[in-house]
Amino acid sequence: MNSQAPLFNRLALIGVGLIGSSIARAARAQGTVREIVATARTAETRRRVAELGLADQVVESNAAAVAGADLVIVCIPIGACGTVAAEIGPHLSPGAIVSDVGSVKGAVLREMAPHLPAGVHFVPAHPVAGTENSGPDAGFASLFVGRWCILTPPAGADATAVDKLAVFWRALGANVETMPAAHHDLVLAITSHLPHLIAYTIVGTADELADVTQSEVLKFSAGGFRDFTRIAASDPTMWRDVFLANKDAVLEMLGTFNEDLSQLTRAIRRGDGEALFAHFTRTRAIRRGIVQIGQDSAAPDFGRTHADLPAEPLPRPYAAADE
Amino acid sequence: MNSQAPLFNRLALIGVGLIGSSIARAARAQGTVREIVATARTAETRRRVAELGLADQVVESNAAAVAGADLVIVCIPIGACGTVAAEIGPHLSPGAIVSDVGSVKGAVLREMAPHLPAGVHFVPAHPVAGTENSGPDAGFASLFVGRWCILTPPAGADATAVDKLAVFWRALGANVETMPAAHHDLVLAITSHLPHLIAYTIVGTADELADVTQSEVLKFSAGGFRDFTRIAASDPTMWRDVFLANKDAVLEMLGTFNEDLSQLTRAIRRGDGEALFAHFTRTRAIRRGIVQIGQDSAAPDFGRTHADLPAEPLPRPYAAADE
Repeated sequence: MNSQAPLFNRLALIGVGLIGSSIARAARAQGTVREIVATARTAETRRRVAELGLADQVVESNAAAVAGADLVIVCIPIGACGTVAAEIGPHLSPGAIVSDVGSVKGAVLREMAPHLPAGVHFVPAHPVAGTENSGPDAGFASLFVGRWCILTPPAGADATAVDKLAVFWRALGANVETMPAAHHDLVLAITSHLPHLIAYTIVGTADELADVTQSEVLKFSAGGFRDFTRIAASDPTMWRDVFLANKDAVLEMLGTFNEDLSQLTRAIRRGDGEALFAHFTRTRAIRRGIVQIGQDSAAPDFGRTHADLPAEPLPRPYAAADE
Repeated sequence: MNSQAPLFNRLALIGVGLIGSSIARAARAQGTVREIVATARTAETRRRVAELGLADQVVESNAAAVAGADLVIVCIPIGACGTVAAEIGPHLSPGAIVSDVGSVKGAVLREMAPHLPAGVHFVPAHPVAGTENSGPDAGFASLFVGRWCILTPPAGADATAVDKLAVFWRALGANVETMPAAHHDLVLAITSHLPHLIAYTIVGTADELADVTQSEVLKFSAGGFRDFTRIAASDPTMWRDVFLANKDAVLEMLGTFNEDLSQLTRAIRRGDGEALFAHFTRTRAIRRGIVQIGQDSAAPDFGRTHADLPAEPLPRPYAAADE
């Protein structure tokens, strides 16, 4: 708990899923806001947010949530951002900072900016952090620690507002970087969107095979497949919106990926062991880079825990012959 | 530690990398063998195996390792199995069980069987377990606990020998299943080989982009990419051999994968949100299946640990205005 004066008087959270509820928990733990007002689309989520005590007030409308807030963070699937911006626009306080957490920034800028009044500071943001779980129960205060939060302020954005939002995210443990929305969307297409698309594809492929049963796919998934299923278990609404909103960059990365896959396929078909070995050696080095800069654990197998060895005695008939 | 009589008098390990050294540690911890004799291709590995005390004897040749052994397990890349079988064939004891741990079983059967004398029981095996690390230091005794070990005995194999090897693997904590080699190779093509190929591909793609720097790929890898890099950090020699040895099944699975990827690509291009949503919902269910049968942790994000929130005070100029 931080004993400093809070950065903001009132944080309005629109949407309290994995990311929204993690922001609420972290902002409260760090004392970065004096008060949190939250709302969510469904009555069920609003009820749960109240039960969990994630906000000081849970209100029923987006308009009510933003009234009097000096920081508004929209934490909903990208496809709904434009509609929400239109709803909150007339109710925003002058000088308020409006931000979001969407995984695509060009679309968010295009859809939200036209609805926000002059005198409000719009600073889109994307914390590159998450898990495969969704909903208000899935969040936790340390989700953003050591992860990057990318700010994509539009041209002419107020530098003080951008700085203040950066300080907010740093207080939640994140590193902050600023870049143009278009570049963000290209970078995330390869580091996040394409990996998700590929994982969704291969898990679907395994599900529909005729010669391999689903039970076999599950049982023998420790050979690599299970790593893909974690990503392919991410929120379907959120990811549908990401692919629709970042179509061009994703299709561009897919083109390059397909060329590379064709090349490796050709090496397999021709039995070109040298080409395979050279490729596999290069990719090993990238893993080391990620571990070195602290973006993943050096523990093998993601640090998965392993159960203890069994204690049951061996069946008698098989004991070794005495010497 | 199990106080029963050991199953085997002498286990010969040819190759002491991640898998071989894990077998040595687990077999000793469980008392399943009276003695372990090990060898490795390089003097450096043999020295390290001796330093780690993984075997009772470390010998310099494969022939010396198998002399007098009633269980021989070959733990080396698949491409070298035929050569090793030719070397050890004349030195095997009558009645010995010869096994391996290779990720492709058809090729191992084809390459090793012709070199093994009558009276020796050849029972190929594949423990579906591992981490991205390699070498004798990477192994640990609980690696196989709760994982599956697949036996692919050839037609006419001695049932007692197959059973005895199954008991050995169960003592190391594994579940055991028996199936024909060809079916194994098809199942593993989708649960292990294709995921590795895809991960190797996408990590390579990210490495060669012109518009996104490698530093950006590493920094923002928590969006999904880092999960792929773990798999793409696996041993290059082992995986080169897997793709060469299981070419047909891998190419078949690749064909199906490519069709599915084209379908999702088309949905993105056309903006077909319903098709995307339907697919992403289906794959989420598969993750639940894997967690339910204990083949992965239910902990979010593979149970990765998160650092604590920062304790530094917020910079003064940004504190909220007093009310």
